Amino acid sequence: MSCREDLAHPCGNGLWSPFDPTDGSPEQCLGGMAWLPGLDHGDPLLTPSSFLRIGQLSNVDLNEDIHELETEVPRQRPNEIPHNEKLLSLKYESLDYDNSENQLFLEEERRINHAAFRTVEIKRWVICAMIGILTGLVACFIDIVVENLAGLKYRVVKDNIDKFTAKGGLSFSLLLWATLNASVVMVGSLIVAFIEPVAAGSGIPQIKCYLNGVKIPHVVRLKTLVIKVCGVILSVVGGLAVGKEGPMIHSGSVIAAGISQGRSTSLKRDFKIFEYFRRDTEKRDFVSAGAAAGVSAAFGAPVGGVLFSLEEGASFWNQFLTWRIFFASMISTFTLNSVLSVYHGNAWDLSSPGLINFGRFDSEKMGYTIQEIPIFIFMGVVGGILGALFNALNYWLTMFRIRYIHRPCLQVVEAMLVAAVTATVGFVMIYCSRDCQPIQGSSVAYPLQLFCADGEYNSMATAFFNTPEKSVVNLFHDPPGSYNPMTLGMFTLMYFFLACWTYGLTVSAGVFIPSLLIGAAWGRLFGISLSYLTKGSIWADPGKYALMGAAAQLGGIVRMTLSLTVIMMEATGNVTYGFPIMLVLMTAKIVGDYFVEGLYDMHIQLQSVPFLHWEAPVTSHSLTAREVMSTPVTCLRRIERVGTVVDILSDTSSNHNGFPVVESNPDTTQVAGLRGLILRSQLIVLLKHKVFVERANLSLVQRRLKLKDFRDAYPRFPPIQSIHVSQDERECMIDLSEFMNPSPYTVPQVTSWQGVFKLFRALGLRHLVVVDNRNEVVGMVTRKDLARYRLGKEGLEELSLAQT
Amino acid sequence: MSCREDLAHPCGNGLWSPFDPTDGSPEQCLGGMAWLPGLDHGDPLLTPSSFLRIGQLSNVDLNEDIHELETEVPRQRPNEIPHNEKLLSLKYESLDYDNSENQLFLEEERRINHAAFRTVEIKRWVICAMIGILTGLVACFIDIVVENLAGLKYRVVKDNIDKFTAKGGLSFSLLLWATLNASVVMVGSLIVAFIEPVAAGSGIPQIKCYLNGVKIPHVVRLKTLVIKVCGVILSVVGGLAVGKEGPMIHSGSVIAAGISQGRSTSLKRDFKIFEYFRRDTEKRDFVSAGAAAGVSAAFGAPVGGVLFSLEEGASFWNQFLTWRIFFASMISTFTLNSVLSVYHGNAWDLSSPGLINFGRFDSEKMGYTIQEIPIFIFMGVVGGILGALFNALNYWLTMFRIRYIHRPCLQVVEAMLVAAVTATVGFVMIYCSRDCQPIQGSSVAYPLQLFCADGEYNSMATAFFNTPEKSVVNLFHDPPGSYNPMTLGMFTLMYFFLACWTYGLTVSAGVFIPSLLIGAAWGRLFGISLSYLTKGSIWADPGKYALMGAAAQLGGIVRMTLSLTVIMMEATGNVTYGFPIMLVLMTAKIVGDYFVEGLYDMHIQLQSVPFLHWEAPVTSHSLTAREVMSTPVTCLRRIERVGTVVDILSDTSSNHNGFPVVESNPDTTQVAGLRGLILRSQLIVLLKHKVFVERANLSLVQRRLKLKDFRDAYPRFPPIQSIHVSQDERECMIDLSEFMNPSPYTVPQVTSWQGVFKLFRALGLRHLVVVDNRNEVVGMVTRKDLARYRLGKEGLEELSLAQT
Repeated sequence: MSCREDLAHPCGNGLWSPFDPTDGSPEQCLGGMAWLPGLDHGDPLLTPSSFLRIGQLSNVDLNEDIHELETEVPRQRPNEIPHNEKLLSLKYESLDYDNSENQLFLEEERRINHAAFRTVEIKRWVICAMIGILTGLVACFIDIVVENLAGLKYRVVKDNIDKFTAKGGLSFSLLLWATLNASVVMVGSLIVAFIEPVAAGSGIPQIKCYLNGVKIPHVVRLKTLVIKVCGVILSVVGGLAVGKEGPMIHSGSVIAAGISQGRSTSLKRDFKIFEYFRRDTEKRDFVSAGAAAGVSAAFGAPVGGVLFSLEEGASFWNQFLTWRIFFASMISTFTLNSVLSVYHGNAWDLSSPGLINFGRFDSEKMGYTIQEIPIFIFMGVVGGILGALFNALNYWLTMFRIRYIHRPCLQVVEAMLVAAVTATVGFVMIYCSRDCQPIQGSSVAYPLQLFCADGEYNSMATAFFNTPEKSVVNLFHDPPGSYNPMTLGMFTLMYFFLACWTYGLTVSAGVFIPSLLIGAAWGRLFGISLSYLTKGSIWADPGKYALMGAAAQLGGIVRMTLSLTVIMMEATGNVTYGFPIMLVLMTAKIVGDYFVEGLYDMHIQLQSVPFLHWEAPVTSHSLTAREVMSTPVTCLRRIERVGTVVDILSDTSSNHNGFPVVESNPDTTQVAGLRGLILRSQLIVLLKHKVFVERANLSLVQRRLKLKDFRDAYPRFPPIQSIHVSQDERECMIDLSEFMNPSPYTVPQVTSWQGVFKLFRALGLRHLVVVDNRNEVVGMVTRKDLARYRLGKEGLEELSLAQT
Repeated sequence: MSCREDLAHPCGNGLWSPFDPTDGSPEQCLGGMAWLPGLDHGDPLLTPSSFLRIGQLSNVDLNEDIHELETEVPRQRPNEIPHNEKLLSLKYESLDYDNSENQLFLEEERRINHAAFRTVEIKRWVICAMIGILTGLVACFIDIVVENLAGLKYRVVKDNIDKFTAKGGLSFSLLLWATLNASVVMVGSLIVAFIEPVAAGSGIPQIKCYLNGVKIPHVVRLKTLVIKVCGVILSVVGGLAVGKEGPMIHSGSVIAAGISQGRSTSLKRDFKIFEYFRRDTEKRDFVSAGAAAGVSAAFGAPVGGVLFSLEEGASFWNQFLTWRIFFASMISTFTLNSVLSVYHGNAWDLSSPGLINFGRFDSEKMGYTIQEIPIFIFMGVVGGILGALFNALNYWLTMFRIRYIHRPCLQVVEAMLVAAVTATVGFVMIYCSRDCQPIQGSSVAYPLQLFCADGEYNSMATAFFNTPEKSVVNLFHDPPGSYNPMTLGMFTLMYFFLACWTYGLTVSAGVFIPSLLIGAAWGRLFGISLSYLTKGSIWADPGKYALMGAAAQLGGIVRMTLSLTVIMMEATGNVTYGFPIMLVLMTAKIVGDYFVEGLYDMHIQLQSVPFLHWEAPVTSHSLTAREVMSTPVTCLRRIERVGTVVDILSDTSSNHNGFPVVESNPDTTQVAGLRGLILRSQLIVLLKHKVFVERANLSLVQRRLKLKDFRDAYPRFPPIQSIHVSQDERECMIDLSEFMNPSPYTVPQVTSWQGVFKLFRALGLRHLVVVDNRNEVVGMVTRKDLARYRLGKEGLEELSLAQT
């Protein structure tokens, strides 16, 4: 018998006492349960005692529901958190992307006729349209608020500088600027650090994980959206080296998740619509559309948005879904375009397709020739190296932050420090710069005269004294000669380190625009140098090289491929540069990958998320399902004692979320063959509704549930501790037949790991049951078992599992 | 025992005698084998005798290998072939997109170290680059040859017309033109009809099927490529209403299949390279890249090409694969661009990214405003209706052709007739037209003066007396007033019917350009009308409406979605029109789908190809694996008698290609559990290499084969009849353990059809074994079992299976 049916007391008393270290030896327990097979007990960072401590502490965050119940538990944080990149966190769960096709589900589906399915389909389109519209509106809101607040700030500071330039005492201006920035950023950081930490950063790694099938707690909640939107406004207004584009992707995703469910749990409003979509399968599809709409609004790149969603999320390409995603993207950029056009006063001309527009590259003047291709490739190499450097620096910084700067107040202080330093660096650079340019017809919004002659402005100020979006566009389009090389060089250097320091702060902000800005600066510098070298040839337009540099730098940092090419292509508004941009991005990726991973992947890994990559590592052919699976598996019988179910669910040492159901009648056959699979969440709903009968009256029909009962509980299923089961009820029996998924996917033990991986990835599974030749359960493969193996520098390496 | 182990004589004598109707009653046999469960014996078209006849006849084509062996069998064709759209052909097989991970394969993979995998990866990139380059060069070749030959033809005809316009006797000119066209088309049709019929048409339906996982005989052979290229040149030169763009997709695919295999079976050359890629899995990936490269070269649309491949083929999106496909596409358009630029004398300016370029739409002059959006939607509706009409007409025509015009000589005659009629219609239209336009600075290549005043030309001739590509561009870009509405109306009408008649002829030709041309004509007409109505507003540029009309018409005919939007966007060279093009295409698709399917899908269905759509029909929840599976299944034992294997393989009544392997030792357990799956092709290689031992010496080690032996035989495995097995050898035993796939995918009987479909489609399976609770084989699901059910007008309908 492979399934442990006597599951009552695997270790300790089996009762729920998460913070009681006397509950059996945790090491034995975890070892005995074999859910931590990769745990290296010799690892200095993970001595039994340290592991125990992490386990205890992070149980607070372990489960969002527990967290909500137990908010009274004090948040003790040690001064130093040991962290290791070779860990895999156990706190993340998988989405149920595979429908549980149990009897209830099938009965409902069979009741729905063709016309009703058409209605469902129409609803999907309506939801996508709403996602597009709302995402576009949110983008407009961010844009307009940022423009006004930043304008206000720059005007105040400019007036101040103008005042003090004449009479001396510019240090007051610096103080004013730095204080303004730091206080704005403080508010932005406070709300993120104390109210919703998951709103920090661009959100792209989190959305990548969500689309990959990992449930990141709180990631698609309304509260997160509100904090994100306010946070990004404050970060940009606070003058940090950040962009507002990345967060749009996260915002779009939250909007999609919210609308598609037709209710908000945070607001406790249920609109009783779209109930059909209340499951992970449907929700994730809408979140893809939301992410695409976000990209589309951010860059005016609807096709790029679709490709982004597909690159990050699609485990199974579906034409209808793609088309809907594209629809949402198009609506999103169109909404943004219409509203911003009206706002800017030229109502019908539709000239603002995205939050950032690279401006019109006139392809006749700025075409490229075949001779330039080696130059572009060289720029790709430079971008790859600089990107790798950026990522490596950010890696060390992030490790430092995880270990030492994990208290919210420290995080806020760091953000304020960065804001003040950014202002100071900008000020000093502007102050020291002697690069004066004539104002005549220039597009500079806040020309700082400083020590320049009348009618001239300080060109360093175009770069520093401006929102980064505008600086990028200026670098692309200002006529040759607008910047002197020294300015550009200093700016690149400073901004590089500022942006690197900024990414990972506890503020909502994106890395796209800073990357583009760094790249545009050195690209333009490169173009100017080329122009010197070639004695000002017509083709050596610095704006073109600024574009290529921007692509190279961004590619070197984020390492996106097809989607980024298309985003860049769409943002430039014409397809002429498609081929050179592709070359540059490809080179940057190849060079960068040689040194270090992409920024998002790096952060995902540092968060120890069980992320499934595209393919199993190539050298994994020696592994089979037998080696990777977790074993022993806790099985349930088809008609099971309620007490056993409660004990199993309450067993904190194993946080299983799916349980194979095996044949319960020992008379018919000796084989305890697999009959189905039931999820923890389903069991909890069953227990909550007391769906069981007395043992003596097994012939009685147990209470029938409807699919609606499960949907109403989705997605925040209560924890088992909140469900009271009396001692009498414990002796009742529960029949799982009609609730379990009767046809879970299975593989034999000899299946190669590649095969397991392919099946798991392609179908977006959460549990894959491993059976022997007689269909008996011998093990279970979950996401963690697959994500545990990784291709390192010296071949296949195994990550340790930890509760952190 | 569910598996029939006494398989010797299921019906008849079990020997191979495909043309012997006395070989048992076919009806009983087929019925008894249950491989034709959907066969409706009451179908008037499929009475037992007619079915028998079809079966006999098409056995000639049934298997390409048999066909090659038995070329002596006379090709008798009846005068009328009964055909029915509700059939599913048994002659198509599936690709093995799932690797057979048997011991040999795993041993090889385990021997390959990390560095070697890197080499494999580099080879993949090299192959993609070669695919891109070669596809680009083939496109250049077609373009240059067509340009020269067509130029020659038009000059000859023009001179003749000019000569006879003055002195009368224009009927000679007509005769010359019609004869020239008909004779050129005759050659083009002859080579297709007699040498390689699969080269007919655009090839897009065939490539769609191939990427969908259906093996279409001869579709990726070198001979097909040669015929395709020559055929398309001759069709376009012959003045048919066709384009050379669609066939590029097919050409690219063939190039990809050829290069990736490192050998040509047709030329009997094996370069001994890329042997690792000799399996369906890898080959199909390269064919995707080839198709994308073809689109890219045809339209200068590398992103569109990638999306086309993904829309049609990707069952499992993979970032690395996508990136490689994109690379091939980019290289392809770049190659074409460079070569054509050199050819046209402006070596470095890279101005010809595709075979057809829509020319530069100046977005400043030709932007759109929000008010125009309802107009675009209306155009989409018109396009959808006209497209549906086109498809419906073509449907009846194709049914007629399948039934009556199936002899090659008739097909050639029809093609010649169409060519002559096309010339005549063009001539008459030009002759009757009184629409004269001044030549001054016009882009017309062959201005026909006819009865116009000196310095003027006949504007009908720009549309008819020109290659269709040039006509499209003229309609987009000629200044307002270049055409009068009457000309456009007549042209639309005539060209609509000509194009409809032409599609489906036995010539190599595409439908993209004719569709665009029809749409551009009525779109321009629409624009002119608008301009009249609005008193010549600035925004009513007829060129813009020509573009939208072209999109609407093409969308209404082919019903592609995302990929077509992007192709159109890339072909116009800027992204401004993205949103309106999407709206137009979406509307056209929705409206068109209301009436009739897309043209390609229609032709796939008329060919009775077992094509798997994106999703299982929504109303199929009542079906489970038990209902859809084929049963009983022919199983093999792990150590099997050679004679039994030979008999099973020779059994023509069932054309099974995969056999479950079950436990052969009855001592250990009573359950004949599934142990693996072996393919027909693998068995044939085993038999060919005499991999077996005498029954008395079972302990002897049987001969070991290498993976190379299987690869050398791929893809043209010999038929079982070509392998001689002596009577003694029949008594030997063969051990299948190390050759079978030990972990085939399985599902339990209760799995819903949706679940089966999802698994099958996502992993690109060929065989899916259905097992019971004790892991015993109870059935098998193949592509035909899934493709058999379809969503018709009145809900789920089941197709009949036929050998046709």
